[in-house]
Amino acid sequence: MRLLVIGGVAAGLSAASRARRLDKNLEIIVLEKGATISYAACGLPYLIEGRVQDPKELIVYTPDYFARRRNITVRTRAEVVAIQHSRREVVLAGGERIHYDKLVVATGARPDRRLLAGRNLPNIFTLHTLDDALRLREFLAARRPRRAAVIGAGYIGLEAAEALRTQGLRVTVFEASGNLLDRDDPGLTQALARHLERCNIELRLNQPVRSLEPDRVNDTPCDLAVLSAGFLPNVEVAAEAGVELGPTGALRVSELMETNLSCVYAAGDCAETVHLVTGRPVWIPLGTTANKMGRVAGANAAGRRERFPGVVGTSIVRAAGLGVALTGLSEAEARKQGFDPVAARIEALERARYFRGKRITVELVADRGSGRLLGGYVLGEQGVAGRINVLAAAVTARMRLDEFQHLDLAYAPPFAQVWDPLLIAAQQLLKKL
Amino acid sequence: MRLLVIGGVAAGLSAASRARRLDKNLEIIVLEKGATISYAACGLPYLIEGRVQDPKELIVYTPDYFARRRNITVRTRAEVVAIQHSRREVVLAGGERIHYDKLVVATGARPDRRLLAGRNLPNIFTLHTLDDALRLREFLAARRPRRAAVIGAGYIGLEAAEALRTQGLRVTVFEASGNLLDRDDPGLTQALARHLERCNIELRLNQPVRSLEPDRVNDTPCDLAVLSAGFLPNVEVAAEAGVELGPTGALRVSELMETNLSCVYAAGDCAETVHLVTGRPVWIPLGTTANKMGRVAGANAAGRRERFPGVVGTSIVRAAGLGVALTGLSEAEARKQGFDPVAARIEALERARYFRGKRITVELVADRGSGRLLGGYVLGEQGVAGRINVLAAAVTARMRLDEFQHLDLAYAPPFAQVWDPLLIAAQQLLKKL
Repeated sequence: MRLLVIGGVAAGLSAASRARRLDKNLEIIVLEKGATISYAACGLPYLIEGRVQDPKELIVYTPDYFARRRNITVRTRAEVVAIQHSRREVVLAGGERIHYDKLVVATGARPDRRLLAGRNLPNIFTLHTLDDALRLREFLAARRPRRAAVIGAGYIGLEAAEALRTQGLRVTVFEASGNLLDRDDPGLTQALARHLERCNIELRLNQPVRSLEPDRVNDTPCDLAVLSAGFLPNVEVAAEAGVELGPTGALRVSELMETNLSCVYAAGDCAETVHLVTGRPVWIPLGTTANKMGRVAGANAAGRRERFPGVVGTSIVRAAGLGVALTGLSEAEARKQGFDPVAARIEALERARYFRGKRITVELVADRGSGRLLGGYVLGEQGVAGRINVLAAAVTARMRLDEFQHLDLAYAPPFAQVWDPLLIAAQQLLKKL
Repeated sequence: MRLLVIGGVAAGLSAASRARRLDKNLEIIVLEKGATISYAACGLPYLIEGRVQDPKELIVYTPDYFARRRNITVRTRAEVVAIQHSRREVVLAGGERIHYDKLVVATGARPDRRLLAGRNLPNIFTLHTLDDALRLREFLAARRPRRAAVIGAGYIGLEAAEALRTQGLRVTVFEASGNLLDRDDPGLTQALARHLERCNIELRLNQPVRSLEPDRVNDTPCDLAVLSAGFLPNVEVAAEAGVELGPTGALRVSELMETNLSCVYAAGDCAETVHLVTGRPVWIPLGTTANKMGRVAGANAAGRRERFPGVVGTSIVRAAGLGVALTGLSEAEARKQGFDPVAARIEALERARYFRGKRITVELVADRGSGRLLGGYVLGEQGVAGRINVLAAAVTARMRLDEFQHLDLAYAPPFAQVWDPLLIAAQQLLKKL
C-alpha cells in the first residue's frame, strides 16, 4: 500500500509524517517540485531583514532526515504534471509514472505573476521560496538599491516592507484595494496606515499596479519591486484530473480532507476550508492551517477518521515593529455575512507601567441579537498574540459577550492589568448591544 | 436611597463606581478602615524589589478623586465594627451609626497572624497593605538585613522571596504543605522548586513553622521574616450580623452577589464564588475576581440583575524571573473532584529561535471519558500569560481536547511557532485519552 504526497512543505510533510506514525508498514513517497523541502516560508522576510543569517536556520528537515528517521522517501525536483486517477498514477515532468493507492494533494499556492506578463525581470522578486529570498538578499548586497516598491499590502507585503526598510531602503507599498492585510476594516487600516507612515513606509492604497517596469511601478521610480499581491492556489493538475474546486477556487475538501475522488485527499494552501463563524467555505492560505489540514489528511489516508473543523481566520503580523493580529470577522465583513454587528474599540495599558507596559488597541465585534462574539483585532507593541488567541478561542467556542466579559484571565503586574484590555473592550461593547 | 460599601479597595470601589454609572441619584458612601484606598496590592512586592520607587504609583485613585469625579463619598479610617441589619445601620469603631438602604460587604481578607501570638515583632512583616510594604522597605534601607525567611509559598510568598533576593538577601521559604502556589501538582512543584533553588532561593517544603522568633524561624537564623502563609476572609462583622458563610468559610453569595440578607451583597476576597470546572463553591481571593464581583454587586445594588458565573482558578506569578501560570484543575485535584483525569506535559520553543524564542513547559489535563479540558499550567520566561488565558477560555467554554487541538491560533515568527506549544500538548494528551 503506497501513499503518495504531492508537495514537500507544510501540509505535505505533516501528512506524510502523521501517516507514518499511525502506520509503520505504509510505503510513503513525497514529491516536491522545488529543490528544498520543509522550509519555513514565514521566516523568509527575516532572511531579507538580516535577522536570519544562515538560510539553513529556515530549513526544518531535510530529505535525508525523512529517509533515516521516518522511513519516508522524499524526492525533490520532482514535478507532477498530471494525475491519472483511473490508473492511480501521477506523471512527472520527465515522463516518469508513479503509482499510488492513496494520494494527498498538497501543492500549495503561488504568487500571482500575471503582472510580469511572462517577462523575467532581474529586479522583480517574490518571497515565496527560499530561492526567491536568497536571490533578493544577493541583489541587496550586490546592487545596494535605494528605493523599493512592494506590490500588495497583505502580511507578506508588510513584512517585506519592514525588512527592506530595516535594510535602509525607501519603501512604497502599492495596494489595489482600500484595505491593509486583506481585512475589510477601515478602522484597522487607518490605525495601521498611520503607524506605517510614521515609520516612513509610504502607502498607496486603492492603487492597482498598471505598469511594472524595471525602474518604476506606475509612476514611482524604484530599484527593485517585491510582488506580494495576489496569491493563487495550485489546483491545475488536480483539477484536470477531476478534483472539484469549491466556490473560492481552491480544492474542495470534506472535514476529513477528502476530495470528490476516492482515496484522494487535499490539504494546505491548495485547498479551501470552512470559516467557523460563517459556516461557509473560505480560502485563507496559512502555514498553521496547512499543517493542521495535512495532519488530518495523513491520518485519514492511513485509515483513521479524523476531522478538521475549520478556521476562524486568525493571523498576526509584525509591521514596522507593531504587532497586528486579527481573528473572526470585522464589523464590515460581519455585516456582509448577514450578521447585525456592533463593534467597540478601546485603548489601554496592557501591563503595569513599571513593567514597561505599552498601550494596546483592542476591537471586538459581536452580533447584536445573539450577543455572540464574531471577531476583532488587537494592535500593539507587545501582548498582542496572547490576546488574539483568547479571542480566537472564544469565537471558536461561540462564546457570548456576556460570558466573555467574565473570563478568568491571569493577572500579575509583570504580565497584565487587573482589568485586561480584552475585558474592558467587552464591557464597552456590552453597552452597545 | 443610600448605598453603603464596606471596603475601599478592589471590590468595594468597583461596586461603588458601577452603581454610580448606572444610577446618578443614588447616595454612595464607601467606608475604608485603613488610611489608603484603591491601592494596587499586587504591586507591593515591586515596591520592595525597588522597581516601583514612589508608592503613589500604586495608588490608583484617591478619596478626593471619587468625591470630585464620581460623586462618591469615601471615608478612610472608618472601621465598621457591627452591622445592625434590622435597623439598616452599620456601627463604626468610634460609635457612629450610618444608615443604609443597600449594603455591599467588601471587607477583603487578611494574612493569618496567629503565628505571632499577639506579639508585635519589629522584624516580622506582612505584605498586605501599602503600610506593610513601606515598613518593610524602610527596614531594608535602615538595617541592611542579610537573611530573610518567607513563610508560605503561595504567590505572595514567592513574589516576596524574589523581591528580597533582588535586594541582595539570602532567602529561605518555608511551606507547611508539600505544594508550591497552593496547587496540588507534584510535577509543577518540582519544576518550580528546581528553578528557585537554581536561583538561590532555599525551599523548605513540608515544614510548618513551629516557632517564629525575632532572630530565627524554626532553627533557621534570619534578620527578618515575611508572613505570607494563610489568608483568612474578613467575615466576622458580616457573620455576626447574620450573613451566612459557605463551606469555604467565606461569605456565601448567589450569582447576583446577594447574601442571605435582603439588600446585602458581598464581593471580593471576603466572599466565595463558584469554580466553573467543578461547579462547587471555592474561595480564591484575587484582585481580578474581586473587581468582577464588585462590579456585579454594584450593578445589582443599583437595581440591575447581572450575574457573575464564577472562576476557573487562573493565576500567574513571576517567580525568580520565571512566569508560572495555572488554570482549572491539576491532575491530582481533578481526581479528588471525581474526574478521571489524564495529563500530558511537553516542552517546546514558544517562538522562533531567531526572535529569542525560549523553551516553555505546558501541561494539559483532560477528563478521559468526556475528553473535556479541565486545566493545566504553563511555565517559562515568556509567552506564558497569553497561553494560560487561551486555556482558561477553553476550560470556561467546556471545550473538548479534540476541539482545542485545532484552535486557530496566531502564528508569525516574531510571536509564536507554527505549532503552538498548547496544540502540541493537546496532541500528546489526545494519544492518552
